[in-house]
This record gives sequence, structure tokens and C-alpha cells, in this order.
Amino acid sequence: MAKAEVSLEHLFRVFTKPEHSDSTLAKIERHLSDNISDFLSQHVVTKKTSLEEIEKDFSSASVPDSPEFVSEHAESLLNKLVAHSVNTYSPTFIGHMTSALPYFHLTLAKLLVGLNQNLVKIETSKAFTPLERQTLGMMHNLIYQQDDKFYEDYLHSADHALGSFCSGGTVANITALWIARNQLLGADGKFPGVAKAGLAAAYRHYGYENIGVMSSNRGHYSLSKTVDVLGIGRDNMLTVQSPTQKLDPQQALKLGKAYQESGNKLLAIIGIAGTTETGHVDPLDELADVAKELNCWFHVDAAWGGATLFSERYRSKLAGIERADSVSIDAHKQMYVPMGAGMALFKDPKHSNAVRHHAQYVLREGSKDLGATTLEGSRNGMAMMVYSSLHILGRRGYELLINKSIELAFEFAEMINVHPEFELTTQPTLSLLTYRLRPFSLSQLAGMPASDITNINNRLNSLTVSVQKQQREAGKSFVSRTRIEIEKYNGEAITVFRVVLANPLTTKEHLSDILQEQLTIANNNRIWNELSVNPTSKIA
Amino acid sequence: MAKAEVSLEHLFRVFTKPEHSDSTLAKIERHLSDNISDFLSQHVVTKKTSLEEIEKDFSSASVPDSPEFVSEHAESLLNKLVAHSVNTYSPTFIGHMTSALPYFHLTLAKLLVGLNQNLVKIETSKAFTPLERQTLGMMHNLIYQQDDKFYEDYLHSADHALGSFCSGGTVANITALWIARNQLLGADGKFPGVAKAGLAAAYRHYGYENIGVMSSNRGHYSLSKTVDVLGIGRDNMLTVQSPTQKLDPQQALKLGKAYQESGNKLLAIIGIAGTTETGHVDPLDELADVAKELNCWFHVDAAWGGATLFSERYRSKLAGIERADSVSIDAHKQMYVPMGAGMALFKDPKHSNAVRHHAQYVLREGSKDLGATTLEGSRNGMAMMVYSSLHILGRRGYELLINKSIELAFEFAEMINVHPEFELTTQPTLSLLTYRLRPFSLSQLAGMPASDITNINNRLNSLTVSVQKQQREAGKSFVSRTRIEIEKYNGEAITVFRVVLANPLTTKEHLSDILQEQLTIANNNRIWNELSVNPTSKIA
Repeated sequence: MAKAEVSLEHLFRVFTKPEHSDSTLAKIERHLSDNISDFLSQHVVTKKTSLEEIEKDFSSASVPDSPEFVSEHAESLLNKLVAHSVNTYSPTFIGHMTSALPYFHLTLAKLLVGLNQNLVKIETSKAFTPLERQTLGMMHNLIYQQDDKFYEDYLHSADHALGSFCSGGTVANITALWIARNQLLGADGKFPGVAKAGLAAAYRHYGYENIGVMSSNRGHYSLSKTVDVLGIGRDNMLTVQSPTQKLDPQQALKLGKAYQESGNKLLAIIGIAGTTETGHVDPLDELADVAKELNCWFHVDAAWGGATLFSERYRSKLAGIERADSVSIDAHKQMYVPMGAGMALFKDPKHSNAVRHHAQYVLREGSKDLGATTLEGSRNGMAMMVYSSLHILGRRGYELLINKSIELAFEFAEMINVHPEFELTTQPTLSLLTYRLRPFSLSQLAGMPASDITNINNRLNSLTVSVQKQQREAGKSFVSRTRIEIEKYNGEAITVFRVVLANPLTTKEHLSDILQEQLTIANNNRIWNELSVNPTSKIA
Repeated sequence: MAKAEVSLEHLFRVFTKPEHSDSTLAKIERHLSDNISDFLSQHVVTKKTSLEEIEKDFSSASVPDSPEFVSEHAESLLNKLVAHSVNTYSPTFIGHMTSALPYFHLTLAKLLVGLNQNLVKIETSKAFTPLERQTLGMMHNLIYQQDDKFYEDYLHSADHALGSFCSGGTVANITALWIARNQLLGADGKFPGVAKAGLAAAYRHYGYENIGVMSSNRGHYSLSKTVDVLGIGRDNMLTVQSPTQKLDPQQALKLGKAYQESGNKLLAIIGIAGTTETGHVDPLDELADVAKELNCWFHVDAAWGGATLFSERYRSKLAGIERADSVSIDAHKQMYVPMGAGMALFKDPKHSNAVRHHAQYVLREGSKDLGATTLEGSRNGMAMMVYSSLHILGRRGYELLINKSIELAFEFAEMINVHPEFELTTQPTLSLLTYRLRPFSLSQLAGMPASDITNINNRLNSLTVSVQKQQREAGKSFVSRTRIEIEKYNGEAITVFRVVLANPLTTKEHLSDILQEQLTIANNNRIWNELSVNPTSKIA
């Protein structure tokens, strides 16, 4: 490959001159602008390439010594990277929470980098700071619906924060529970608070053996990461087995009481508004009662489901969320914003002061710098993407999208239900559902002896894994898989297909094709064929 | 404002059709592509608008009900947001660590959003996963320079990580110390380790009163945030007063021993490679010795200075960094990558297992999903920006840029030194320096009685604050300010101008103009005029 000149003159050109309009980079740009879907179908060439093969293109750990020409590098990006990336825009990519995005984000992304603001402080962000505060205010309002006076008082107050913008739901959950922890173990008489004295001293002072966090076992894995990071410990993540996919308030209360009676303190109950695996919503209102009775923080992880609040028709599925002390929402999920836009919202704008910090050169006392209460430091202006989406789509636009997704999930559920060779394993609540291939010969599986159920489920699990992999590798469509406990199979965990119906471009025809493709793959599978003919043949 | 239609048809267009080439958005895009500097000078119209005035444009906390047309929204973005943002590209914006960026990032930003990958797992990122691993490997190599075999073994190993990509230096520091903490307080006999049992149980098991982290008082504020988040507590952040701006190894050793002799355990010593306020580099090699003697983790915060390693001429300023257990580097600082690209690198690729976590639907045991050892969950593909920069600029390109910045800082220092009305308060080590206005009449200030020094410094501090604000508000140029202890003033903290010379477009002429502007502002300042005429006039 020809190497570019090593000179400051060449570098200045790289900083100040756009690429020629015939260059590869300029062509990439035009193609993206004109027709992103065409760009992706032309360049994301899914071959059955194994990861190991792809790794060969990324195997050197040496920093390239000499500069490369931009256009040559752009060619290499197309061939090595774009060709082997994932077409998340595709209407048949329904396995994860990434979807097609509105077109305007392409230009906004460019504007964002062109402006390259740093939102940690006003001196490097100026109007972006009030914009981010307003965006958080709108999301706060969506959840908590306080009166005008409230938002007048707090939206731009230097001593308060309605929320915290962050890179994603994990940091949002950490932020919320960090605040909850520091609030619970705050300063008290001569004790300076956990933020200063540390966790061990705080437990000694308050006389707690441990503090704990409770959620259903469908809680996102970021919750156990959170209790690890915060020093609480994963053993104090009280996960309640929930074969209904929802945290049972009675069980929560009982477990919480028992935990507290043994010298511990329950820090928080987590209600989930849209589990990652099946989209279920915990009974938030009843869990708020439990949290009140146990006198603990109530956090709602609405990373996925939060956007349902835009829909007047389905908003009530999240009833009780307004009683949460804190809520996490990811705009890069059902708000169709590019990756990297998480938010934690706080019911009480004073609570964020539990983690407020200062520095000499920024975040001075009394400043409105956003960095004073965020977990992250330097941050980009992703809030602009959320702000623009809220304006361009509007609440009513989001409502249409949310309604469409949920209703498509119900239609897909019905397609699966009436199909003799598939089994719906969880009903949709929001736009997620799970199902599996199950031969018609096994439609009465739940009524069989327990040991037969286990045996057959094991074989069906292998089948599901195999079909899911083959379908992914074929590259036309993608569903994911997970393991969930199913009540009617005695609470046994089984492997299932998992789909997320959030791409507005996905139609019923796409879904029907996906089922057909799975069935075709299964028809070439030994387990499937054996089970179809004689379901109990291999049972010892 | 005309409202767009509320229909799924309209929304589909927003998702699938680019804006017309006459639209405001398309114009913004072309202007950015053709001449970003012109776009910014035309649209970032710095008026003396107070933050309160800007806030009026962002004062509603209601989610807009109806959709807006994209073009109308784009107009409003230009007027409300872009007009009042900060021109970080400008060669006279030298107050913070944000600078002009190479042109190709504009297109890459668009490609990144067009692809919208999620790097938490291979299923939503594919080739981006090996790309990120390779990028981390290159940065690891830049620091640790291990042999080929090492990188062959670990670069793409599912059970190892050479580093962790994250949104910025703060998360990098938290990640590094999280690993250090879990490593120190790991599983041991029947004790399951701090990750599971929590911090209080770990202290009890290991018999520590507290664990602590040490750095000079020039450590970034993210360090105290880190010890807060991790449950260690800010009181256990042992900050050593360092009027030389560098952590003294003898003092570090003494303090560390005393701390450990009182029943505590020192978790880590932090060496700083480029302090945020003055760009000083701690004596890393000697601090590595101290860490060894105290048997603790050695972390180097090279968020700013890490890129110096690209320069053969100046690499030795960071000698000893290769002995660090972990290193933080921000690519969005001196690697000229857009905001949002932090990295933590780990000397020992096994160490990241101290924070490894799994989930059913992703991050399965044995997978190469990057999310298994990162603090964040869903993440975008910023690694591509770093990867492309490493190729397009190359080590030698970076070397030229780094050398130019450092040498410009030395030239600026000399300009200040020979100027009778300015005082250089810290010599540059890398590309940062601090100085202040100080009338020629006070050139012997250090020799005056201590009480006079204090009195005069207080008045000079007010002057510095006032000049810095006026210069920022005038909008032509921007230097920041901070407070630092100065040895010759008996270790007293004074307020100083702080400049960061990283923008390759900044010239000596720009710097000379900035000094001239400050002098002009000072000439209209009462304190300046009084001190110039009779330095001790107001001393009681």
C-alpha cells in the first residue's frame, strides 16, 4: 500500500481539507446519504465467515508506523470492517434491541462531531448544557408529571439535577444505585457519610451486616455488576426466581423482611419495565408499596420499556413507575437514537447531591456544569440526538411507533400460536416474545411425566441452539436465543428463540418468512426428525 | 411552526428517505463537508449572551406533542444550539483539552451511526469486536511492548482482555481500580472474594481497617469519584500535597508505610502522566519501585499524556509507565478522536477476569463478547475512530503532532518569560502551562514578606479571574483558569491562566495575540492599575 507523506503539511491537510469528491470516503458518504439501506445491502456482505477468519484481518498488535492515505484506508474499512459488520437496519434483524434509525441521525452525527463539545462543563459545551438539562426535564416529566412550578424551580438549578445523562443503561443503573447507597448511608452526627468514610465504616456506623438489592431473576446482568462495583457484593443481589417472568410483590415483601430481620438493610427494590429477555413488566405499583413498607429505595429499570410512556394506549402497562425514586431509560433502544444515550432520572432533584463533587478548574461550587453529578467525566453531546428526536418524532410520533411494535408482537404471537410446529413460550407484554420449534407430535408435552419432559426439553434445547446458529450464519435474518424458566414445565429452564419487534420496517411477511426458514432448517435436523416421528423414541 | 403529519407513512419516510438536497439539514451537511471551519465561524456566533439568556430557549419540560418537520427543526438547532455552542476547533480556543479534529472523522461519524453496532456482544458487532481488540492491543503494545508471542496468545483470547474500551478517562480509572480492588480482595479459601461478598465482608476477612488509594493532590477529580463509587471512601484517597506538581516518591513511601502500619492496606498508587492542570508527569519509574515495596497496584493515569508515547523524542518523559499494572488513555484528547473514546489497558491480560460476568442471552461462558469485562454494557463502535486514526495518522504522524504541541508550549513559555508583565507559574512538561498577569513592579514579589505576598496574591487572583472571564465573554479566544500551589510563594495557592496547546492549527501569532488581549483587558482593570503604580499601596 502506498504510504502518505510524513510531514506537518500533510497532517494539516488531513485536519483542514475535505477529501476530494471522487475519493472513497466521499463516495461512502454520498451513498449513506442517498440510500442507507442500499449502502448496507451492498457493503455488509454476509458470508459464512467464522469469527476466526475475520480476526485474521485484525491480528497485528503493532501501531502502523507510517500514515496511510485516507482513501486507501476507507477501502480497507469497507472490505475488512463494514463487509463483516451486522446489518442492524435490516427488518429481519429482530434478535436484539438495535434497529433502523431515522435518517436525520446521520447528519446529526456529523454535526455532533463537527461541534465536538464536552458536556462535563459549560466552558466546553455552553448551550448544550441547558439542552441536556431540558432533555432530562422532558423525560422526567414523561415519568413523574410534576407541575410547571416544579420544572421552573429545578430544570436549570445549579444545586439540583432531574437526571443524569450517560453512555447507557448500565451506567444509568450504577448511577441510580450509587445515589441510593450514598443517600441511605449519608452523613449523620459525627459520621461523614459513606462517600467519605467508605462502605465498611458505614456498615459499622449504621450497624448493618450487609446491604442488599432485590430484583426478579430477570433483572439485567448490569444489576449484579452494579452491586459488585459499588462494593455491596453479588451475594447481596437478592434475585427472586420468577417463572412468571415478574417479581411477585408478596415474595418480595417476605424476602425483604427476612433479610432485614437478620441484621441487614435492603437498599433498593428494582422493578423492571421491560425485561431484556421477554419484555415483561413487573407490578410496579405494588412493588412501590413493598418498597415503602420496607423503607427502601425503589428503582425502575425501564431501559427498554420506558418509551412505552409515550403511548396513551399502553402507558398504563407501566403504572406505578411515577412512584420510583429513580428510573433508567435508554434512548438508544425504543427512542431510535444511535447507540450511547442512557439516562437516569431522579424523582427528587436533591438526591443527586449525594454524589456531587467539585474540582478547582471545573465544576466549581455553584456552577451549572453537568459533570458535578455524573458518573462519567468528559462526555459528548448525545443529548442533542434525544432532543431532536423528541421534536422531530414528537410524543404522538413515538406513540405510533410504540403501538405498532406492541401490536406486531401480538400478531406474531398469534402466528406462532396457530402454527402446529411452534410453541409460544412467553406472551408479549411489550414488543418482545420468545418461542421455539416443537413438533406437532409434542403438543401435549406439558402433560407428560416429569422425566420425559426434561429429556425432551434437553433435546429441543439442542435443536433451538442449532437452528438459531444456522439461521444467523445464513445471514438473511437473525433471532437471538436465551434460557428461561417455564411454569408448565415445572419451572424448568429451556432454550428459546427471542425476538424484539422494534424495527418499524419489519412486516408480518418478514416474520412469516423467518418462521418458514426456521422450519426448513429444522427439517434437516436429526433431532427434529426423530422427535417429529416418535417423540419418546430416545427416552431411556 | 407548521407541524408534520402524525402518521406511520410520515414516520416511515423519516426512517427511510433522506432529506431533499435543498433542505436545511442537507445544507448543514454540505457546509460541514466542504469547510468545517467556515461552517463554525458562520454559525457559532458568540454573543455576550449569558447562560440565563440561553436557558430561555431550553425552558420547557414538556415533551413536544406533535412531530416537527426535519428542516424546521434543523433551523431551530442552528439558531438555538449551534449559535451558542463553543468553537472547539478554533486555534484560539486553548483553555481545555478539546481541539480541532481531522476531517475524516466527520464521515466516519456518519458511518458509525449508519452501522449502529453494539459492541457489548459479537451478535451485534461482528468484525467490530476483533477491531476493538486489535485497537486495544496496539495501545497495549505502545505502552508495554511485549513480544509477538504475547499478542498472538492474548489479542483475541476469549479468556483474556488487554484492556477495556470506555466512554472516557473517568470510566477507565474506575475500571482499573475496580479490577485492582477485586484482585486484592479476591477469593481465598472459603472467602468468595469481594465481588461476591462485598467490601465490608472483605475487610473483615482480610483484617483491614480500610483500603486506600494514593496520588498527588494534582490527581484528577475522577479519582475521588472512583473511591466513592467503589465504596473505598474519599477519606481513603490519600492525596499528597505536591507544590512541585509531582508526587514525591519518598513521601509516597513514607505515607504508604504509615498508612499500612495503622491496620490499613494501600490498594494502589496512581502515577499521573500529564496532570490535567499543568501537564506534569510524576516520576513513574520511582513510583513503580514504591508500589513494589508497598506491594500494591500501580496505576498510571495517562488520559492526557499517554499519546506522548508515539514520540521517539519525548517518550522518555513517561519512562516507567511500562511497569504500571494498568494505564488509562483518552483517545479523544491527544489522539484527536471525537469525544467518547477512553481506554484502560492492563499489563496482565488475566487481571480483567477479576470483574468478568456472564448472562444467559449474551456474554456466555467462552464467548469473545467484549461486554463480559467492561463496566459499561451496550456501547457504540468508537474503537473504529481510534483504529482509523492510528492508520491514517500513523505513529510517525502522531509523533509530529505531539512534538509540535510540546515545542509550541516551550515557545509560549519563553514568550511569557521574557514579557515584563507576565509570570510563568509552571514550566511545561508536555503541552500545558500556567501563567498570570503580574505587573513589572512586582517582579520581585517572591522576595517580599509573607504577609505582603498573601495580600498581593489575593489581589492578583481577583485580577486573573476577572480577565479570564472578560476574555471568554469577548469570544475571540479562550484560556481557562485554575488554582495551584507555588513553592516560591510559600506553597500558597494562586489563581492562574491555564492553556493547553494541542490544536495543530494554533500558531505563535495566535498566542501573542492572546497575551496582548489579556494585557489590554488588564489595562482597564482597577487592581492592575493600582498594582502597576504602587504595588503595596493597599497593604494594611
